[in-house]
Amino acid sequence: MSLLVVGSIALDSVETPFGRREDVLGGSATYFSTAASFFGPVRLVATVGEDFPAEHVRFLEERGVDLAGLERRAGRTFRWKGRYAFDLNTAHTLETQLNVFGDFQPELPAAYRDSRYVFLGNIDPDLQRRVLDQVKAPRFVACDTMNFWIDSKRESLLKTLRRVDMLFVNDAEARQLAGEHNVVKAARRILGFGPRAVVIKRGEYGALFFAGDHVFSACAYPLASLFDPTGAGDSFAGGFMGYLARSGREAPDVLRRAIVTGSVLASFAVEQFSLDRLATLAHDEIRGRYRELLQLAHFDELEADLFDGLRR
Amino acid sequence: MSLLVVGSIALDSVETPFGRREDVLGGSATYFSTAASFFGPVRLVATVGEDFPAEHVRFLEERGVDLAGLERRAGRTFRWKGRYAFDLNTAHTLETQLNVFGDFQPELPAAYRDSRYVFLGNIDPDLQRRVLDQVKAPRFVACDTMNFWIDSKRESLLKTLRRVDMLFVNDAEARQLAGEHNVVKAARRILGFGPRAVVIKRGEYGALFFAGDHVFSACAYPLASLFDPTGAGDSFAGGFMGYLARSGREAPDVLRRAIVTGSVLASFAVEQFSLDRLATLAHDEIRGRYRELLQLAHFDELEADLFDGLRR
Repeated sequence: MSLLVVGSIALDSVETPFGRREDVLGGSATYFSTAASFFGPVRLVATVGEDFPAEHVRFLEERGVDLAGLERRAGRTFRWKGRYAFDLNTAHTLETQLNVFGDFQPELPAAYRDSRYVFLGNIDPDLQRRVLDQVKAPRFVACDTMNFWIDSKRESLLKTLRRVDMLFVNDAEARQLAGEHNVVKAARRILGFGPRAVVIKRGEYGALFFAGDHVFSACAYPLASLFDPTGAGDSFAGGFMGYLARSGREAPDVLRRAIVTGSVLASFAVEQFSLDRLATLAHDEIRGRYRELLQLAHFDELEADLFDGLRR
Repeated sequence: MSLLVVGSIALDSVETPFGRREDVLGGSATYFSTAASFFGPVRLVATVGEDFPAEHVRFLEERGVDLAGLERRAGRTFRWKGRYAFDLNTAHTLETQLNVFGDFQPELPAAYRDSRYVFLGNIDPDLQRRVLDQVKAPRFVACDTMNFWIDSKRESLLKTLRRVDMLFVNDAEARQLAGEHNVVKAARRILGFGPRAVVIKRGEYGALFFAGDHVFSACAYPLASLFDPTGAGDSFAGGFMGYLARSGREAPDVLRRAIVTGSVLASFAVEQFSLDRLATLAHDEIRGRYRELLQLAHFDELEADLFDGLRR
């Protein structure tokens, strides 16, 4: 497999009802590539400043993340500061310091240009297309976005959407992008913008997948130990794309397993701060939680004679 | 089967973003018994005033709802006025006129006392126990409640919970009752209060079922046509209890099918105002949507060789 991700690498300061951490490893490309690394190598394109700790570089290297596309520049690393209230579904941004990420111009090393699977993390949609322009013949392209780009760069985002196979968004982003409150109608409208498929992430409630008339509803793993939701969406996308690239097919049953796998990776990611839980995660645990979800969501057909002899 | 419901019969005035209706048929016992009537007869205990239209009585009779327990008293029928904003998950109560429901003292006709399945709709927990006192040997008792009773009659509610097999609540009620934000922990605490099982209804997100260590996550049917959420919870409970009473067993697989059936009935109920959609619903449609949910939620096991040759 050849899976490419472009996105942010950040130093996050996070407050949740359960504690706080300062300047811990974060960023969309970091969560994505760590989650995807369970399924094979990942090629990363991102930028960090001079202050980026060497231990974080080692962490990614040791996971088989190809850092040929990691640019280290003069200046400070992107920093994000956020707070989660008891409703852990929504992040409240306290501070954003773009630093070297502010004028990030993603450049693909020559060896990356044959990448077949591409994940465009949540960056300026102009830059998302700039990355696509550098990939020769992608087989499956997915992208993420956020309210900021939907609002401020809508036309550019729509251009990007015409070139991707799948969009990952949350409920609120889907509604904003489609201008439609009902999530089913919103998904249909988004499919009209170009992507073959859209995944609507709903945090602790699971995810809905739409592709043509095909709909899949994945329940989330009911966590008693939700700790820090940062990176859940990118871990979801990483698990999804990692599984997809490993599988090499995009049949409906494969996409469904990819979504559940994404959900499993996200459920682990939020159990501890930063990448702490993904750092210790093992293949057996991924498989075990996937099996739990199979059990959790299983139900049988109705009895054939259920309504026999009843009126109506 | 012998399924008993006690609850309200109301004349509702409802505003949604899609329209409004004045003095239409509503109430927990009404939605419950209509939904349950697809699976067999239902015994109803409720009260209405002199102004209650004869056509509504006929509607229930024609569905096989036993009205021996329907008390008609001097005065006006219970009235509820509510509004739903674009977030259709939450009702904003504009006005409540208890009228004859205000001093409702449920009395079971002698013929109801052998009821085996009992649903205690959302009424004063003192009255819920008063009903239980009149049932000889119930096999399965479920109850509903709301923030008002959790707040103002907590001790009485806890007494009721010690006598029921299953509690139906929504997310917010579960959190309030348990004093715990995490829904998994909240469910566990509620099980400690007495019920063998708890269903946490999450509106458009589905439902979670907890019984001991057994957990089931049911996705909701993704509706493009959600119109009026009034009665969704009681239709859910009606579909659940109707199916359960029809089946005559409480094995885990039966309870799971009952939950999905409840979800199907709720999904139809909200497609139109009042009881309008349930009034025209057919067995084949219930079966059809159940099958759609089976498809919607289905995914396969992970490949046995998925992680072969990968590090970690």
